[in-house]
Amino acid sequence: MNVTELFETPSLIEDTDLQISADGRLRHLLTLKGLSKAHICRILDEAEAFLSPPGHPAVRTRALEGRTIANLFFEPSTRTRASFDLAGKRLGADVLNLDVNTSSRKKGESILDTIYTLQAMQVDIFVVRDASAGVPAYIARNVQDHVSILNAGEAEVSHPTQGLLDLLTMRQHKSNFEDLTVAIVGDIAHSRVARSAAEGLTTMGVGELRLISPQALAPDPGDIPGAKILYKLDDGLRGADVVMALRIQRERIGSLDGIPGIDEYFANYGISHERMKLAAPDAIVMHPGPMNRGIEIESSLADSPQSVITNQVTNGVAIRMAILTAVTQTVESS
Amino acid sequence: MNVTELFETPSLIEDTDLQISADGRLRHLLTLKGLSKAHICRILDEAEAFLSPPGHPAVRTRALEGRTIANLFFEPSTRTRASFDLAGKRLGADVLNLDVNTSSRKKGESILDTIYTLQAMQVDIFVVRDASAGVPAYIARNVQDHVSILNAGEAEVSHPTQGLLDLLTMRQHKSNFEDLTVAIVGDIAHSRVARSAAEGLTTMGVGELRLISPQALAPDPGDIPGAKILYKLDDGLRGADVVMALRIQRERIGSLDGIPGIDEYFANYGISHERMKLAAPDAIVMHPGPMNRGIEIESSLADSPQSVITNQVTNGVAIRMAILTAVTQTVESS
Amino acid sequence: MNVTELFETPSLIEDTDLQISADGRLRHLLTLKGLSKAHICRILDEAEAFLSPPGHPAVRTRALEGRTIANLFFEPSTRTRASFDLAGKRLGADVLNLDVNTSSRKKGESILDTIYTLQAMQVDIFVVRDASAGVPAYIARNVQDHVSILNAGEAEVSHPTQGLLDLLTMRQHKSNFEDLTVAIVGDIAHSRVARSAAEGLTTMGVGELRLISPQALAPDPGDIPGAKILYKLDDGLRGADVVMALRIQRERIGSLDGIPGIDEYFANYGISHERMKLAAPDAIVMHPGPMNRGIEIESSLADSPQSVITNQVTNGVAIRMAILTAVTQTVESS
Repeated sequence: MNVTELFETPSLIEDTDLQISADGRLRHLLTLKGLSKAHICRILDEAEAFLSPPGHPAVRTRALEGRTIANLFFEPSTRTRASFDLAGKRLGADVLNLDVNTSSRKKGESILDTIYTLQAMQVDIFVVRDASAGVPAYIARNVQDHVSILNAGEAEVSHPTQGLLDLLTMRQHKSNFEDLTVAIVGDIAHSRVARSAAEGLTTMGVGELRLISPQALAPDPGDIPGAKILYKLDDGLRGADVVMALRIQRERIGSLDGIPGIDEYFANYGISHERMKLAAPDAIVMHPGPMNRGIEIESSLADSPQSVITNQVTNGVAIRMAILTAVTQTVESS
Repeated sequence: MNVTELFETPSLIEDTDLQISADGRLRHLLTLKGLSKAHICRILDEAEAFLSPPGHPAVRTRALEGRTIANLFFEPSTRTRASFDLAGKRLGADVLNLDVNTSSRKKGESILDTIYTLQAMQVDIFVVRDASAGVPAYIARNVQDHVSILNAGEAEVSHPTQGLLDLLTMRQHKSNFEDLTVAIVGDIAHSRVARSAAEGLTTMGVGELRLISPQALAPDPGDIPGAKILYKLDDGLRGADVVMALRIQRERIGSLDGIPGIDEYFANYGISHERMKLAAPDAIVMHPGPMNRGIEIESSLADSPQSVITNQVTNGVAIRMAILTAVTQTVESS
Repeated sequence: MNVTELFETPSLIEDTDLQISADGRLRHLLTLKGLSKAHICRILDEAEAFLSPPGHPAVRTRALEGRTIANLFFEPSTRTRASFDLAGKRLGADVLNLDVNTSSRKKGESILDTIYTLQAMQVDIFVVRDASAGVPAYIARNVQDHVSILNAGEAEVSHPTQGLLDLLTMRQHKSNFEDLTVAIVGDIAHSRVARSAAEGLTTMGVGELRLISPQALAPDPGDIPGAKILYKLDDGLRGADVVMALRIQRERIGSLDGIPGIDEYFANYGISHERMKLAAPDAIVMHPGPMNRGIEIESSLADSPQSVITNQVTNGVAIRMAILTAVTQTVESS
């Protein structure tokens, strides 16, 4: 079965129960949809235990000693791959980094055969990034009982570890999700980061979620339930407690109505010190990285005390250590 | 001395004694030629000790702690490289993965200078894949006494760890090599897998070895002594206990007489459920991977109980752990 | 801030104090300029402790256990990257190898944002190679107090670990730097190897330093103070104790006056057995690698007893282990 056949079975993509074992524990991490508030809170709590004070050595355990993790990135990535790589190594696992573009796929092997091969080599956890929707769930349906799949970025659909690190970062800086107004700004239509953040925030009972973008980059109606869709940045920022700027691909800017170039994009949708005056006085600024400084975010704002962007990165390793530990405990106890 | 000069010294390629130390132990693994039946049996026995029951954690030792392995793949590879990488890590070795295409060779350094450099960094074992015949033996002739060379795929000549994992897989499923009829099907002419399997099977005293291919892909006369060369699949499969399908490169199909396309290739040389009715009722199906499903093998057959393809992969890690351990003990005791 | 803006702040490039902490210990290694003779001697002494007798296992410690090293090579490299990789692993560190060409830079992230991201993942030491001058010092100015930067090759400016391994190799074979005549031959103009060797040798009080090259490849006047600039190989080799051949890029040969091809370059500037008769009888031959055999050095000379080229490689790992240990102790004690 080839991965192109996936699109004939769209039901796979909706599936969210797959990731929870019979006794309610995390078996795979495919999406934030279907994870309960209690479950998310437990993951965030466990991630806190993997954080150390600034300047202190990284936290290490032996929880995954003897386990093997394969990082399968079918799209290029530095930060997410490095984050999973370090998370695995700091838990004592053997980590296999595979650049699948340049070998098996050249030879025409299907994703599932690559997975079967590595599973037969006793890989325990697969970290998968792929440009096609449905791939992580498709793999999860086909692996053995003791194998876990972690979604490290799936098309424009989902990026659940990013969503969790965003929630952790907000929780560290703000008290209650119920009281929060969160504004996500930029290329919402193509953003798996926005979708996973929205799913997590909705479960956590966020006060108000605003998605701000040019009309051409707005999500389809009903795509992100419960969110307010806005087209003017000022409307979106007014009183916001959390402002998350999204990366925009430069090529896309040219195709936007009334936005002929980078300067116009920044003027209309760039998050700047000036624009942040509309937000709450103690609002925090987030960005999933890598940043286009001067396009979606003012460079000096990214480095200012309002910015929690490097906290997000630090939290990312902790979230991944928590998830790796959780799925290993689930398969061990089964 | 440049690697192109190798072809002026064809005697190097024939050499098989190089890999056995004075006291009869394995120093390098270059080819299965010249390895005795007793020696091969010992390797297979040792590999068995590195297998764990399905679902159990991978077997680990500290036998190579403090040792350094360099994986030098001059041809792209996912499965063999991952297999050697995991074998090394599970023995406690430091593993260096080098993509030599993109650095030294760009700068024009010879293979031997790359080896000398890494040897001076105290690399103990080199795992080498190269598209030129004679490279592993050439390197083995030139390294220091405490350094071992493992051939991980040499042109169309040899792939000895693949041959060993194939033997181990057959031994696990069938009792005596003397009673076995083994049919290898496909692009025999260009296959290092077929050559190493044939060498190993001949040493083990296989009952009958059949090589089945279109005429254009048959081996040269005398190339694989003792084997029956056949051109019709039905003749080859009749009563076979083991059927090994080989990968064929799609480009090659077009050049075959009377085989204009993939469908005709599958109809004439594809291993299918239907075709397997000719073989022994308990025949096993093997494939070295990566598979072209629907070309050399019917997709559902590859996933059926008759298939031992994933066993081959699991055995591959065990064989490589056994070989890495064996050569380390040889140089330690010398 | 983008790396291209570096060139507007040339003062950064001159900075050499940055690498020494307030109490005189090594914090970063950016350049050999400004390192005292006592400091260099201490590093060489410490490196000696990481050498083992030929054929013995590599020396290992746990000095960097729990530390994370990121190898950031923005230029391709096999030998220097492998050397740092092994040095880190043999000290027990977690090593992250990043090929930054193919991911973040494709997405347009600045070097500094890549560093900030990895720093937030608790990377402790960055090993950086870059084709632009000033990058290592620029990064060193911007990292947190507990983070160290090691220059692994900076444009044509500096390659300090190479300079140190060259000094260690000379010290092992010759008694006093004060009595030595050192001849460096080849493409001096473009060589970071020659610059770092010259800086180190000058600090160590070398007797005489000669730089020999075709006129087009000579350094700018005053670029390398204290060295004799020569254009004839015979003048440079006469009585020399140490002869270091530099790698020349083949493309450059065609542009040299009176040197139409490789044969002429070898005849005029190639180091050969014949030419070495002019040097001291016990002179040693060095080369930083990778070698163009038959161009800047006679192939058989590179493999002769006079050559210490593989010693340089072995010393390279030891120097890098010493530097990694030194900077870790500095940030721990601060």
